[in-house]
Amino acid sequence: MATPPQRNKVFFGTFVHSKTLAELEYLHNTAIAVNATGKIVAIEPDHTSLDSALFSLLPKLNWTADSVSATSTASPSHFFFPGFIDTHLHASQYPNVGIFGNSTLLDWLNTYTFPLEASLSDPAKARKVYTRVIRKTLAHGTTCAAYYATVDVPSTNLLADLCLSAGQRALVGRVCMDQLSPSYYRDESPEAALSATMESIKYIEGIDPAFDIVRPVLTPRFAPSCSAPLLQGLGKLAAERPDLPIQTHISENKNEIALVKELFPPSATGAGDDSYSSVYDAFGLLTDRTILAHGVHLSEFEAELIAKRGAKVSHCPCSNSAITSGAARVRWLMEKGVTCGLGTDMSGGYSPSVLEAARHAALVSRHVAMGGDDAAKLTVEEVLYLATKGGAEVVGMEGKVGGFEVGMEWDAQLVTLGTVGEDGGVGDEEDGNVDVFGWESWEDRIAKWVYNGDDRNTRMVWVKGRLVHERK
Amino acid sequence: MATPPQRNKVFFGTFVHSKTLAELEYLHNTAIAVNATGKIVAIEPDHTSLDSALFSLLPKLNWTADSVSATSTASPSHFFFPGFIDTHLHASQYPNVGIFGNSTLLDWLNTYTFPLEASLSDPAKARKVYTRVIRKTLAHGTTCAAYYATVDVPSTNLLADLCLSAGQRALVGRVCMDQLSPSYYRDESPEAALSATMESIKYIEGIDPAFDIVRPVLTPRFAPSCSAPLLQGLGKLAAERPDLPIQTHISENKNEIALVKELFPPSATGAGDDSYSSVYDAFGLLTDRTILAHGVHLSEFEAELIAKRGAKVSHCPCSNSAITSGAARVRWLMEKGVTCGLGTDMSGGYSPSVLEAARHAALVSRHVAMGGDDAAKLTVEEVLYLATKGGAEVVGMEGKVGGFEVGMEWDAQLVTLGTVGEDGGVGDEEDGNVDVFGWESWEDRIAKWVYNGDDRNTRMVWVKGRLVHERK
Repeated sequence: MATPPQRNKVFFGTFVHSKTLAELEYLHNTAIAVNATGKIVAIEPDHTSLDSALFSLLPKLNWTADSVSATSTASPSHFFFPGFIDTHLHASQYPNVGIFGNSTLLDWLNTYTFPLEASLSDPAKARKVYTRVIRKTLAHGTTCAAYYATVDVPSTNLLADLCLSAGQRALVGRVCMDQLSPSYYRDESPEAALSATMESIKYIEGIDPAFDIVRPVLTPRFAPSCSAPLLQGLGKLAAERPDLPIQTHISENKNEIALVKELFPPSATGAGDDSYSSVYDAFGLLTDRTILAHGVHLSEFEAELIAKRGAKVSHCPCSNSAITSGAARVRWLMEKGVTCGLGTDMSGGYSPSVLEAARHAALVSRHVAMGGDDAAKLTVEEVLYLATKGGAEVVGMEGKVGGFEVGMEWDAQLVTLGTVGEDGGVGDEEDGNVDVFGWESWEDRIAKWVYNGDDRNTRMVWVKGRLVHERK
Repeated sequence: MATPPQRNKVFFGTFVHSKTLAELEYLHNTAIAVNATGKIVAIEPDHTSLDSALFSLLPKLNWTADSVSATSTASPSHFFFPGFIDTHLHASQYPNVGIFGNSTLLDWLNTYTFPLEASLSDPAKARKVYTRVIRKTLAHGTTCAAYYATVDVPSTNLLADLCLSAGQRALVGRVCMDQLSPSYYRDESPEAALSATMESIKYIEGIDPAFDIVRPVLTPRFAPSCSAPLLQGLGKLAAERPDLPIQTHISENKNEIALVKELFPPSATGAGDDSYSSVYDAFGLLTDRTILAHGVHLSEFEAELIAKRGAKVSHCPCSNSAITSGAARVRWLMEKGVTCGLGTDMSGGYSPSVLEAARHAALVSRHVAMGGDDAAKLTVEEVLYLATKGGAEVVGMEGKVGGFEVGMEWDAQLVTLGTVGEDGGVGDEEDGNVDVFGWESWEDRIAKWVYNGDDRNTRMVWVKGRLVHERK
């Protein structure tokens, strides 16, 4: 069984989550009941205490007091928040975070990335790296991650094993790439790539048949590293298996876009135009289950096509700034009807934290605004929506995770902010860098968390009701 | 006496500091001797151990073994680094970090900033806020800070007292502003502003006559909030007191620049043109002791004028992105001959960390590069230079702090990076977010620190030889 049964749980305190893109909802003095399968079964506001909430909830739910474990916090600096959803990251690149020099995408891949990814065919190294990235992202409140592993099947499968055992919800993708990468690191043929993909899919389905925690994801690296027959084969597989999500990269960097135009002219794809999006579309890979990382330089036409197909965009601001890809126009994409979430994109992105991605999404949106479009700016509320509800939609789990509603699963974090003593003392240094002086509104506390928060503020993390991380 | 005498000290391990803008120097197996007044008196490379270094150093320095306290670290994940220099921040705005909404400079001042600054005339509140900001910045390795306080003299003096007692090197400026701010928060007249300024200068000179740790700094807030007579009076004072540094803001935001043009036409200043820089120049405030915060939208002419006068620029990338001021062209400024350092600019900037400012300087430079000038990108080495040696020059302490050379003072931090266990375990969580796997070069370790480091990596901090912060 993928997830061992849990006890019933009741949480009491303040809950904050995205009601809409523009608005956070604050539920104070509230109790949330989560059943043994990790599902939210009741939300009750206006209780004076945990005891009062239990007194009301237990009979309704037909739960006995000793079947329930309770987590309660009444501090005005503590709140429950939905777990973060990292819609794009390369587990295999984690050891390279922060290491990219002055490179841009194509030289970055050859210099830093392919050698590291290839080296993870060593199972001991893969175990060390994957264990670390899972623990690290959990510590930062990431309850669900859309992972790229490597070309290698056994270590991809190991990543799925490790996610399942750590209890981190994950899409795990074996990377398909049969051209343009060094000969030491690629699929030998389209057939070999498809067969390795099937092998990994079967394995992951075997360890978690209900997709409770881990699920496989079709993962063509990006168009330039896939031959037309490989893309075609993956499109066929996607059509045969409508339960499988798809993830790839798009329109990250201008040289990459030029390369795609060169490699995939309309004459080769049968597409009506030479856009990057149309290449995926021509091969049946632009679907409502497709996660497109980046989308920095999309044209008007492409944004409309993506919206029409229902494909989603993973915005990776830290990465886009770090390797000088560009500043994605997230407001514009959303106005075109494209669903967006956030990705750390390690190690193009330097940080394991979706909170840092949210912060940097706000900052990058201001750089877009500097170009003249003041409406481009994303608010604190909006970047937190992208980090949770938006992300859930991107990974195909809308209505299941990303917020606090009856029927959704309990993927959540307990956030604690530091409080400044009357003498200005630093108090408990492990409280981190958010300093609450006491007079701040709840909205201001949340803004402080977004701009100065880190993993020290994420005290406990649950996935599907199971406690998967706790700071001591 | 400003700083109580210390014991002689010897440090042993790896020392990393900026040799030039482009190059970090790595001194391994090295000992640095610091005398009781906090001055570096010897640097000896190529020792196999602390004992070997002491055996060589003590007789040369005529020190007895029991007069020396030693700090030694041989771990390949530990190194000594110069203390950071924050060339621009508002101590009084610290409680507002992260709180700015979607505002830009002029509305941000009125909405968020002036009310908070005004409230610090309450001495208890000022003590709480100032104590906190000093401890917080010390914890982030800031050994020297150029502070703006408020208009209020007693609490400005309190800030100087607190810096002196905490041992943080600081310029402390009473803010001069006699127009355009709300009536509840401004100097009553140019005369009142000058007299309050003198009062604060005298107080700070009284508590640290040799400027060992704290020194006063002339602080016209920025041109729009100062009348011509006030600027003139401050220019006169600056001429009479060539020992005093000057700090102000320049060219942060386009509306601000338009306002300056409106308020200070050449007919009013006698300047030859209507540029922002020429306003300060006309009043004798553009000197080689002047720290100009921001400089985002400077013209070619202004950059040349600033370089000619020897004034310095404090680059505040977190602030410039957060309140949508613009992307300063640091490479261009440096090529024009302008000396640059980094500022956190709290609370326009959201972070107390100069390391975060360094990281964001690299990222913002990439946004400048996206405009087409690939050479704009700043390297890890360059942003660390700005954070240390560049900053020292900006605050007028070049040759005294910012690096490890005989004759300089020991303003330093011990940096420790986390090491990943063989099982991928997170080890000591308090190690922070830099994960060293073991195979990284020293250059890569430094890059990892710049991109994922935080105060958890700053284990010990010294100013002028005195230990001023230690993480337990």
